[in-house]
Amino acid sequence: MKCMDKSCDIIIIGGGPAGLTAGIYAARARLDTLLIEKLMVGGQTATADIVENFPGFPKGINGLELTQLMHEQATGFGLKTIMAEVTGLELSGVFKTVRTTEGDFTTRAVIVAGGSVRSKLGVPGEAEYAGRGVSYCATCDGAFFRDKTVAVVGGGNVAVSEAIHLTHFASKVIVIHRRNQLRADRILQEKVFADPKIEMRWDSVVTEIKGEDFVSELKLKNVKTGQESTLPVDGVFISMGLKPETDYLKGVLLLDDSGYIVTTERMETEVPGIFAAGDIRHNSGRQAICAAGDGATAAMSAERFLRE
Amino acid sequence: MKCMDKSCDIIIIGGGPAGLTAGIYAARARLDTLLIEKLMVGGQTATADIVENFPGFPKGINGLELTQLMHEQATGFGLKTIMAEVTGLELSGVFKTVRTTEGDFTTRAVIVAGGSVRSKLGVPGEAEYAGRGVSYCATCDGAFFRDKTVAVVGGGNVAVSEAIHLTHFASKVIVIHRRNQLRADRILQEKVFADPKIEMRWDSVVTEIKGEDFVSELKLKNVKTGQESTLPVDGVFISMGLKPETDYLKGVLLLDDSGYIVTTERMETEVPGIFAAGDIRHNSGRQAICAAGDGATAAMSAERFLRE
Repeated sequence: MKCMDKSCDIIIIGGGPAGLTAGIYAARARLDTLLIEKLMVGGQTATADIVENFPGFPKGINGLELTQLMHEQATGFGLKTIMAEVTGLELSGVFKTVRTTEGDFTTRAVIVAGGSVRSKLGVPGEAEYAGRGVSYCATCDGAFFRDKTVAVVGGGNVAVSEAIHLTHFASKVIVIHRRNQLRADRILQEKVFADPKIEMRWDSVVTEIKGEDFVSELKLKNVKTGQESTLPVDGVFISMGLKPETDYLKGVLLLDDSGYIVTTERMETEVPGIFAAGDIRHNSGRQAICAAGDGATAAMSAERFLRE
Repeated sequence: MKCMDKSCDIIIIGGGPAGLTAGIYAARARLDTLLIEKLMVGGQTATADIVENFPGFPKGINGLELTQLMHEQATGFGLKTIMAEVTGLELSGVFKTVRTTEGDFTTRAVIVAGGSVRSKLGVPGEAEYAGRGVSYCATCDGAFFRDKTVAVVGGGNVAVSEAIHLTHFASKVIVIHRRNQLRADRILQEKVFADPKIEMRWDSVVTEIKGEDFVSELKLKNVKTGQESTLPVDGVFISMGLKPETDYLKGVLLLDDSGYIVTTERMETEVPGIFAAGDIRHNSGRQAICAAGDGATAAMSAERFLRE
């Protein structure tokens, strides 16, 4: 296998559902394919206690188990995986050089599938209760909070959309925002203000997340008066935005204002032979199944590119 | 559930992986969702003996079983399904009317996921050996033909791309085309002609597919000389194009020249509240996993539409 000499047909950067599905498709098409993952194969999906909405698993499946199954599948078709951090991507004629902490790799095609990182609050209790009441995705986890009281932290479009989504499950949704007005679009604001299940906590920040086995209360601070208070909740959705892992791609690929990679619907970037898939690209669905679909599409586009 | 009175939040047309995944997402978001399928839940995927490349199933999974799992999952979240053929889609203000052989349904949002039909050769043996040597998708089934001799019937870009893809597996690939030149792009033609594994049979049509348990030979006829011949093969890939099921949508939605629905990457058509997903849309990946990703994206877009 050519990849063993550090030269491949396709290099996939990132081992979440997008990268793993790209790996299944590329390796099954008998292309020399190397996947480079910096931390843990599975990406953010691997941290989900249970994934209920990945089609094919009616009882739900543990996120780590799901992504391990994907990795086993890709490896069975011949995908190679190394653990390394990608530090740069350079173009030189038809070849691309992927610079990593484990050396440089040369390839004809690259699929960038490095995902994005959810912004953290950075308060005591946040890491401790992750997956036990602390969530970063209402579409993923909202259904676990039927008839419960939940808080949403944030004031942008995503935060407000998540609050409305959560009213389908929760009995009460409290939006905590550090300012005294929302950044979200007016139409979403009107919905929020009209919804009897949604309550606003203005000028407030969360200073601590507390509980026993599960989240039970938030400590809040009013940023104007300095007054502290306690808010009993069953869960808290932190919606402070996402940050795509694209620092090393500035000047190489076209990024949108938030740093996401702009692609066509065939996952092509504006550089021939470089493709992007999953949460790292502009307008992706931010769901494991969407990332997987992106990954398959990117691998088929890469195969087409290599063929032409 | 409102859908029982024939009025819903979302109607999904088509029960393949795109429609079923849309159903999982829409029903899990607690929207009143009705799926209308005309023939058999599962779509074309349900006819696949084994699906090797749907991520999460490293041993492969029977297509019917996979789609039944998806349906069970969607039903568990509250999706309703009826068997009916959709005959029309009408817009009247914010509501849409879906006309079916089981009556009319009113809805606020529609996800069109009716798939496409693979054009058949229409020769004896074709139906009999479907899945036993007769295939309509090289990306799906190529890997089952390692070191075998296969034929590809067709002369367009897809046929030629499939022939090149098949050289990664088969020992010999014979392209059978009814004309004496290919319709495919020149760059693909050059690849085909340069490939020692690919052989051309010009001016020829398949008149019969024969075998015992599995395909073993094709009967060919030269359309210029009328001469008949026999070609021993282990498989035949019929690549005569696809036809999307969009006849009833002409004049309602923007279709491309081949009849596929044009969407944004968020699966929006140009009619607010109507979305499309899977094989029926322009530029979809024509794979179960791509259709599933499309379906999730369409359902999230529909939810956003209903919320605004």
